[in-house]
Amino acid sequence: MLDAVLVGTSGTIPLPGRWLSALLVRLGSELLLFDCGEGTQISMRQIGWGFKAISALCLSHLHADHVAGLPGLLLTIGNAGRTEPLAILGPVGTSRAVAGLRTIAPRLPFEVAVLEWTGGEAVAWNGATLSCTPLDHAIPCLGYRLDVPRHPRFDPDAARRLGVPIERWKHLQRGEPVEIDGRTVRPADVLGSARRGLRLGYVTDTRPTVAMPAFFAGADLLVCEGTYGDPADRDNAVENRHLLFSEAAGIARDAGARHLLLTHFSAKMLDPWRHVGHAQAIFPNTSVGRDHLTTTLRFDD
Amino acid sequence: MLDAVLVGTSGTIPLPGRWLSALLVRLGSELLLFDCGEGTQISMRQIGWGFKAISALCLSHLHADHVAGLPGLLLTIGNAGRTEPLAILGPVGTSRAVAGLRTIAPRLPFEVAVLEWTGGEAVAWNGATLSCTPLDHAIPCLGYRLDVPRHPRFDPDAARRLGVPIERWKHLQRGEPVEIDGRTVRPADVLGSARRGLRLGYVTDTRPTVAMPAFFAGADLLVCEGTYGDPADRDNAVENRHLLFSEAAGIARDAGARHLLLTHFSAKMLDPWRHVGHAQAIFPNTSVGRDHLTTTLRFDD
Repeated sequence: MLDAVLVGTSGTIPLPGRWLSALLVRLGSELLLFDCGEGTQISMRQIGWGFKAISALCLSHLHADHVAGLPGLLLTIGNAGRTEPLAILGPVGTSRAVAGLRTIAPRLPFEVAVLEWTGGEAVAWNGATLSCTPLDHAIPCLGYRLDVPRHPRFDPDAARRLGVPIERWKHLQRGEPVEIDGRTVRPADVLGSARRGLRLGYVTDTRPTVAMPAFFAGADLLVCEGTYGDPADRDNAVENRHLLFSEAAGIARDAGARHLLLTHFSAKMLDPWRHVGHAQAIFPNTSVGRDHLTTTLRFDD
Repeated sequence: MLDAVLVGTSGTIPLPGRWLSALLVRLGSELLLFDCGEGTQISMRQIGWGFKAISALCLSHLHADHVAGLPGLLLTIGNAGRTEPLAILGPVGTSRAVAGLRTIAPRLPFEVAVLEWTGGEAVAWNGATLSCTPLDHAIPCLGYRLDVPRHPRFDPDAARRLGVPIERWKHLQRGEPVEIDGRTVRPADVLGSARRGLRLGYVTDTRPTVAMPAFFAGADLLVCEGTYGDPADRDNAVENRHLLFSEAAGIARDAGARHLLLTHFSAKMLDPWRHVGHAQAIFPNTSVGRDHLTTTLRFDD
């Protein structure tokens, strides 16, 4: 089970009542944050999932509305008692930006490890896999994908028949062979076929890219920017390198996603839900995000 | 007339419902901001005085809760259309911190001029004088004073008797002599004695200093940190280099201030007004600040 909460849904400008776009993910005992604009830590305090468990932070890009909250958040994570390392993933330039912002947060009780990605990289996080694809914005920008694997079903009757003592089942469940009286019991002897896991995508800020549908194929949840809802804003979307609602819906449709959640709304769009029809005509299961909206993803059946 | 609004009243941590401590001053057509923690621009948007007219920003010190909002605010000031230079005043290290934070706000449509002060300096601002005194905190920290002069009363009857045409009165009002038919009319011939102006003080974060009472002597309004209200927090105040309510009141009393406005409350003190008696016993005209509380200072009578 994975929980994802919209920390904010505003683009460019933090508004009273609408925090800047960020997404907080809870998986097991760890937290993963996507983006960190000014005020993110305040919204997170309202959400109440805590700070200490944040083990990774993924920055889409280095525009201030996605990263200016970093020094304050790092200090707050430290005040919450974190001593384990924290990974910061982001595009080229992230190390320099983190160093610059840490001018006012030089001392932390935990190590910060920065990974600069260009697209195509992947890293293990908390039993899952975090990977990225390059987006198309005014500066280097990354879209992220989190894949949570589901272990194959374990057949206890088969394990008993093969004489595996209960205390050694965990090895087979992990995919490790076990020696029993000179015989080898392989994981395949007691495990069912592969099962569908969970896939979460996070996309902002960008124009559509050719790679997105394949990269986010079958996503259970695609959190995607929809800076403009009104089709009349097409020129603004192109000029400012953002998406219309209908374009985000096209990406979700082409990816075969299960659910599209729109975020990163232009400050001039105070009523994004009025435009949701433009997306739903293309991808019916589209929702308009709002601050603190929480979505829980569960394995099938 | 000078308006001062508490942009926030929280110390250290920005809380839901209580922004970080900052003070916004409006004098004529210009704005002056003291401190800029995370979220300051959001609170300022609620206040509604705009961003374009901010011509100076005074930083008390370089702890994140007083400065982390800087890059976002600078971008917002630029988006509001400012092209005139903006002065940033602060203690030693301000240039480096501003440069670090501007890693994510490199391009602005106005010039930023940084002045690093150690205490004792003064500068003209908007017809008034801005000066500073060193405070006693864990890192270099400055208290600020704004002095708004009041012009002496102009005597129109005297000006008429001396034959000064109305269109030249403005020179005498500005303190410049005027030649009339070979005679010199001096400002003193038509102006009354000096009149009391307005004095505003801004103090955070600090322990009491010997210099404060003289520096803030007769202040119309002293906005001063009171991180702790409960006298039982004396050890915390000493250790963390902050003030008790009673200590802030002692400074206001010794300075002969007219009004003390407490701010910068510890996050654990959710009800600062409960402790105001500890200050009022020492300095009766003490108020407990709250976000967006606005005070207007007017010249006497």
